[in-house]
Amino acid sequence: MKHIKNLIIGCDWGTSFFRLRVIDSSTNSVLAELTSEDGIAKTNKKVEKESDRFGLFCEVISENLDALKTKVDFEIDSLTIVLSGMASSSIGMKELPYGHLPFGVRDAFGLDVEVFENNASFPNPLILISGLRDKHDVMRGEEVQLLGLAHLMEFSKEEETIIILPGTHSKHCFVKNGVLNHFQTYLTGELYQILSEYSILSNSVTKETLKAWTPKASEAFSKGVLDAKDSSMLVNLFKVRTNFLFSEMDKPENALYLSGLLIGEELGNISLPSDSRPIILCGGENMNVLYKKAVEALGIESRTQFVADDILIKSTIAGQSEVFKIHNKKLND
Amino acid sequence: MKHIKNLIIGCDWGTSFFRLRVIDSSTNSVLAELTSEDGIAKTNKKVEKESDRFGLFCEVISENLDALKTKVDFEIDSLTIVLSGMASSSIGMKELPYGHLPFGVRDAFGLDVEVFENNASFPNPLILISGLRDKHDVMRGEEVQLLGLAHLMEFSKEEETIIILPGTHSKHCFVKNGVLNHFQTYLTGELYQILSEYSILSNSVTKETLKAWTPKASEAFSKGVLDAKDSSMLVNLFKVRTNFLFSEMDKPENALYLSGLLIGEELGNISLPSDSRPIILCGGENMNVLYKKAVEALGIESRTQFVADDILIKSTIAGQSEVFKIHNKKLND
Repeated sequence: MKHIKNLIIGCDWGTSFFRLRVIDSSTNSVLAELTSEDGIAKTNKKVEKESDRFGLFCEVISENLDALKTKVDFEIDSLTIVLSGMASSSIGMKELPYGHLPFGVRDAFGLDVEVFENNASFPNPLILISGLRDKHDVMRGEEVQLLGLAHLMEFSKEEETIIILPGTHSKHCFVKNGVLNHFQTYLTGELYQILSEYSILSNSVTKETLKAWTPKASEAFSKGVLDAKDSSMLVNLFKVRTNFLFSEMDKPENALYLSGLLIGEELGNISLPSDSRPIILCGGENMNVLYKKAVEALGIESRTQFVADDILIKSTIAGQSEVFKIHNKKLND
Repeated sequence: MKHIKNLIIGCDWGTSFFRLRVIDSSTNSVLAELTSEDGIAKTNKKVEKESDRFGLFCEVISENLDALKTKVDFEIDSLTIVLSGMASSSIGMKELPYGHLPFGVRDAFGLDVEVFENNASFPNPLILISGLRDKHDVMRGEEVQLLGLAHLMEFSKEEETIIILPGTHSKHCFVKNGVLNHFQTYLTGELYQILSEYSILSNSVTKETLKAWTPKASEAFSKGVLDAKDSSMLVNLFKVRTNFLFSEMDKPENALYLSGLLIGEELGNISLPSDSRPIILCGGENMNVLYKKAVEALGIESRTQFVADDILIKSTIAGQSEVFKIHNKKLND
C-alpha cells in the first residue's frame, strides 16, 4: 500500500453525529469521508463504568476507521487523528477543561489540546482539542471553525469583526487583529424549536419547512425581525398567537414571523446605526436564507458578508489541519 | 326550601379547572363552593359534533350544580349563572367575539356578554361573558378580575395604574380614570416551564419547589432580575447553563436565577427611573414572593402595592356580581 505525505484524519464529533475525513493537511483537500450516527450522546450512553470511557470511545473510532479503510487504497493506520467538537466534553471520551480567552484565531494561542500517543491497542496518535470559555460562555468545536475560517478568508485588519455561527445555539465571536476576545451564545434555534413544539404557540405555527418564499412569507418574516426591536421578547412572542387568532397570518407565515422575531432579537445588539463593525455570517445554505432576509430588514447588508456552504464545511477541515501543523511544529522546534 | 335574595351562581371556568360558587351579590360573600376537574379542555374533548357543543357544556354545568345542591339548604335552581373565563372561547361552550377596548373597569363599558334564558332542559338563566382584545393581545377572565378589583380597592385618580396579573401568561393592564386602554401579555410563566423542562437548561436547574429562601437563593434570584437589564434574553438564558457548568450556582439557585431573568425581563419596561406610575401586583401567595423580590431588586417598591390572596380570589367573585348587577339594571331601566 502506498503512503501519502501530510495526511491526517479529521474527526468532527458532535452530539448526534460522527464524521471522519482523510485530509491532505497541505491543501485541505478531502481524500475520503465517512459519517455515522455514533454521536457523543449515543456513545456516552454505552459507558457503564467511568474507567471504560476512553477505551469505549476509542472502540467507536476504530469501528468507523475500519469502515473508512474500505474506501481508500492507501495506509491510514499510522495517521494522526485530530478530534474536535464534543469529544472533549463531560459526556465525551475525556473531559478537558475549557481554554481561556484571548484565543489566537491564526496561531491557536490559548487552545488546549491533549495528545495521546499510539499504542498496541490503538495504532493512531490522537490530538483531542478542548473548547474555550468566556466569563459567561462556552464553545466546543466553533474554535476550530474559527481557526479554519481565519485561514480561508481575510478578516478586517482595522476593525473588530463579528463572526456569527448560527444554529441551535448561535455563536457571536468578536475577533480583532487575529484575536478572539469575547463571544456570546444566543439560544435562538433552540428557543424556536421548543416554542413551536411545546408552547401555546405550537397551535399557531406549522412545523413543515417552507416550500417557497411568497411575498407574504417574506413580509411576515421581516415584520418579525422589525417587531423584535419594539418590545420585550416576552410580549412579542404572544403576538404569534394573536396573528393567528386574528387571521392576520396563516401558520406557515406565522412560523416565519416567530423565526424573524428570534433572529431579529439576536441581531438587535449589533444592528444599531452607530455600529460599523463588519459581520461575517456563517449560516450555510439553510440559515443564510433567513439571516440574509433579516440583515436586509435591519439595513445592515453593507456590513455583512455571507460565507458559502463549501467554505463553512471547509472551516472545520482547515482548522483541524492547522491544529495538526501547529502541534507538529512544536514537536520539531 | 327557603329563598335568599340577591343570590347568583358564579362559574369560573378555566382551561383545566371548573369552579361554582353561590354568591350573595350584595356583599360578595360566598355561601357555598364547589371545584372539579371538568376544565374547558377536558370538556371540549368530549364534543363530537359541533351542534352538540352548547348542550354538552350545559350538561357538565348541570352535573356540577347537582353536586353543589347537596351542600346548601336553599333553592338554587332559578339562580342566574354568571360564567367567566374560557367558557366563551373557541374551545368553550359558545365562542363569543372579543370585546374591544376601551373597557370600563367600574361600569363594564365595552364588555360583551350573551344571555341565555332558562328553559325546560336547563332551569338557570346564563350570562356568558366574553373576553377583550387589544391590537395585538387577548384576555378571557382577567376582565372580570379587573372589574372586581376596581370595586374592592382604589386605583390612582391622577395617574395611569399598571395592574399586573402574573402567571403562565402574565397580563399587564394599563388603567386610567377607570378605563382600561391597553394591555399586554408576557409569556413569562410558560417560558419558564418549557425552558426548565425541554431545553438544554433543564440539566442546570431543579424542578423541585423552593423550601427556604437562603441568602444565596435570594442573591441568585436578584442577580437574574438585574442581569435581564444588561443583555438580550437570548444571551442571558445561556448563562443559566454556564452558572451550573462553572459551579457558580447549584440547581435550586439556578432555577431561581432563571426565574429572576424572566421576571426581570417582564418588569424591565415599567421599571425605568423616569416611570412613576403606580403598580398593583396581583400575584397571590406564591407569585407575590417572587415579584416582591424582583420589585425590591429593581428599586420600585415605593410604586408597588401587592394584592393579598383573599382580595385576588374575591376579585373574580366581585366581578361576576358586578356583571350580574349591571345586567339586571339594564333589564329594569
